[in-house]
Amino acid sequence: MDEKKETSRVEAFSDGVFAIAITLLILDVTSAFSDASKLKLFELLCQQWTVLLAFLLSFATIGIMWLNHHRLFALIVRVDHTLLVLNILLLLAATVVPFPTALLGRYGADMVNGVDVKNNGTNFWLATILYNGVFLFVAIVYNLLWRYATHKRRLLSRDVDMEAVKRIDRQYLLGPLFYAIAFILAFFNSQLSLAVNILLAIFFLLPGIALSTSQKPA
Amino acid sequence: MDEKKETSRVEAFSDGVFAIAITLLILDVTSAFSDASKLKLFELLCQQWTVLLAFLLSFATIGIMWLNHHRLFALIVRVDHTLLVLNILLLLAATVVPFPTALLGRYGADMVNGVDVKNNGTNFWLATILYNGVFLFVAIVYNLLWRYATHKRRLLSRDVDMEAVKRIDRQYLLGPLFYAIAFILAFFNSQLSLAVNILLAIFFLLPGIALSTSQKPA
Amino acid sequence: MDEKKETSRVEAFSDGVFAIAITLLILDVTSAFSDASKLKLFELLCQQWTVLLAFLLSFATIGIMWLNHHRLFALIVRVDHTLLVLNILLLLAATVVPFPTALLGRYGADMVNGVDVKNNGTNFWLATILYNGVFLFVAIVYNLLWRYATHKRRLLSRDVDMEAVKRIDRQYLLGPLFYAIAFILAFFNSQLSLAVNILLAIFFLLPGIALSTSQKPA
Amino acid sequence: MDEKKETSRVEAFSDGVFAIAITLLILDVTSAFSDASKLKLFELLCQQWTVLLAFLLSFATIGIMWLNHHRLFALIVRVDHTLLVLNILLLLAATVVPFPTALLGRYGADMVNGVDVKNNGTNFWLATILYNGVFLFVAIVYNLLWRYATHKRRLLSRDVDMEAVKRIDRQYLLGPLFYAIAFILAFFNSQLSLAVNILLAIFFLLPGIALSTSQKPA
Repeated sequence: MDEKKETSRVEAFSDGVFAIAITLLILDVTSAFSDASKLKLFELLCQQWTVLLAFLLSFATIGIMWLNHHRLFALIVRVDHTLLVLNILLLLAATVVPFPTALLGRYGADMVNGVDVKNNGTNFWLATILYNGVFLFVAIVYNLLWRYATHKRRLLSRDVDMEAVKRIDRQYLLGPLFYAIAFILAFFNSQLSLAVNILLAIFFLLPGIALSTSQKPA
Repeated sequence: MDEKKETSRVEAFSDGVFAIAITLLILDVTSAFSDASKLKLFELLCQQWTVLLAFLLSFATIGIMWLNHHRLFALIVRVDHTLLVLNILLLLAATVVPFPTALLGRYGADMVNGVDVKNNGTNFWLATILYNGVFLFVAIVYNLLWRYATHKRRLLSRDVDMEAVKRIDRQYLLGPLFYAIAFILAFFNSQLSLAVNILLAIFFLLPGIALSTSQKPA
Repeated sequence: MDEKKETSRVEAFSDGVFAIAITLLILDVTSAFSDASKLKLFELLCQQWTVLLAFLLSFATIGIMWLNHHRLFALIVRVDHTLLVLNILLLLAATVVPFPTALLGRYGADMVNGVDVKNNGTNFWLATILYNGVFLFVAIVYNLLWRYATHKRRLLSRDVDMEAVKRIDRQYLLGPLFYAIAFILAFFNSQLSLAVNILLAIFFLLPGIALSTSQKPA
Repeated sequence: MDEKKETSRVEAFSDGVFAIAITLLILDVTSAFSDASKLKLFELLCQQWTVLLAFLLSFATIGIMWLNHHRLFALIVRVDHTLLVLNILLLLAATVVPFPTALLGRYGADMVNGVDVKNNGTNFWLATILYNGVFLFVAIVYNLLWRYATHKRRLLSRDVDMEAVKRIDRQYLLGPLFYAIAFILAFFNSQLSLAVNILLAIFFLLPGIALSTSQKPA
């Protein structure tokens, strides 16, 4: 129990950053609906649904980031400077998410509504690449953090459940692979890469697929 | 005590999200008063009182959400993936609240001040429906989370106070019912449905009606 | 120790709200400086110093609110529904602070710079009254919360330091009195009432005057 | 363990403020990209890279502030009123960071893009001085807090690792010196002083140089 306490402030600080990043996402939705206040609300909802979709997707993704953080730090019980810096890199990614989300929602709305046709293709395309780039970065940093912490059980509890560690090891090979595919897809087909993002979010949230730290597989 | 610890990070993350969502509400008040900065402040206060009322109502409602979270997680001591995902759904609802609140305040002010009469009826009407929809969603997800956690005492402490569990069981039948009534009312009479919302907020905040987790009924 | 734990989530949620309210204050400073971006930065600093002063004063006041919360909840160890609702009222006040702060900074700048002379007298006057009104509300709610918690030692630890309780009792008679004076002054002389606010903030922050919970008087 | 608990709320409140300040930084990036929405996104990225650089530098610096807070409060176990007030001063600095960051990014972009040449020299120059001034203030307050807490071991644990205390003592002589140099440089050469800031951020984040609280030097 005493061993455990070392990570409690890292968890508290990280919880704070995740909580704020996930909550700030709504600000861009509110402002997207205030910019065009001359329209009827119903028409606005029809035009700005990409903003709402980007909000939901980013909310789900930051939620999944938190779930992963929760899982890893149930097993990691010690900290050192390198782990703290890797954790700050993770938080950087979480913090950045509202930015490409805003770009995606806005340029997505422009494209759907045929505004500024000449530019829009490229704007939406570039926004999708940035968006996927952030998620690929997240997946890579989570892997670095996990490999660093588990290397020779460096920062794990002495009585850690090695089953759980190996399960995460296997799953963490797939994350970066999936997000790399979505990232590469973004260069060729923005819609398809976003569809992959949505599928990944649903996949990681569905019970029974990703396993919680407190449940052994049945 | 050791059993308890499993929920501590869920509580910390949820506290963060509730705290931010409840605090972000003021941003829309500040911006409603800066948009129209040519007017005298006194006139502004007379015109934008709907923004202040929407702020107070949403503040009370997120406060009540937190009170409920506090009550449930005093009894829930274990977590699994499904509970975490249901909790993220709850936090989604809390996070979203500032958006329909902003719409309600703004379109309410438009209506009160007779601005843009042609559209306003529908804008305010739709904003009220969205606003009530979010609260109905909250009430339903709280029920799902509670039923899931208590089913066969799945995530409860072994020595849980079954009196307290049953009391919440009974009360949680009423919440969705009340909010469903307010939601349906919103389609027919916006003002009336908001009045029901205000009454519900006062009802849930009044001491002696809702019972705290630490007090047995007298 | 077990007795203590009951307040930990109230403290965590309150810490979150105080932390966010105190940090959001800077947003209005940033936006005050972006609205008038055609000017030289140096001229802006000369014109908008009231925004910076209002920021500092509100920062100090929310800081003092947190210090008081910290002091009271070092002695309060149990919670009930009434205490939670009184605490939510406190957080409402903390959350609201950025709004009158923004009004005060903005209308203060208008007045200092002689913009819109006809209205400004009243705008700044009304903003100062609102600002002081929030602080008076805070002082009153802190008293209600403290009297409620200590009445017949209702929510105190069994082995509470009654010296510390009585010291707070005495000090808490003065708080509402001082803020009531500042509030009444605000109707007659805005500058003077703000000067009282600044003095009160310095007074409560100075070491040796307000006594921390962990230090006995020398 | 009981001795330890006294600082837990200070840490929680501070974690909240650091988390919010570090997350709010992205808001200015998002708004810098929404102001000029007529441009292609690619061109915007080329013009506003100073906003992104200022964001990254401030993110790293607040991250380092948190790392330092984490290190000091691993050794500080008691609190008194003076420590709490010094800590509030630290949080003031963390809270303020988004403001000079916004100025630096914006005026930096103006300068890079040759907008408003006549003013820009001075605007960017003054923004850099303010930016460095905040960091110098941080370094000084951290020193005051540390010297106050360690003076006659006032607020340290009885069984504190004096090796760790002396290591921090030595390192904390250098911090203010480095930031004073960057501050003075800012009056003569803005770019050079920012380069020093970037080097300091990298230096403090690199593993093996700054030592974590949990690792003895090898």
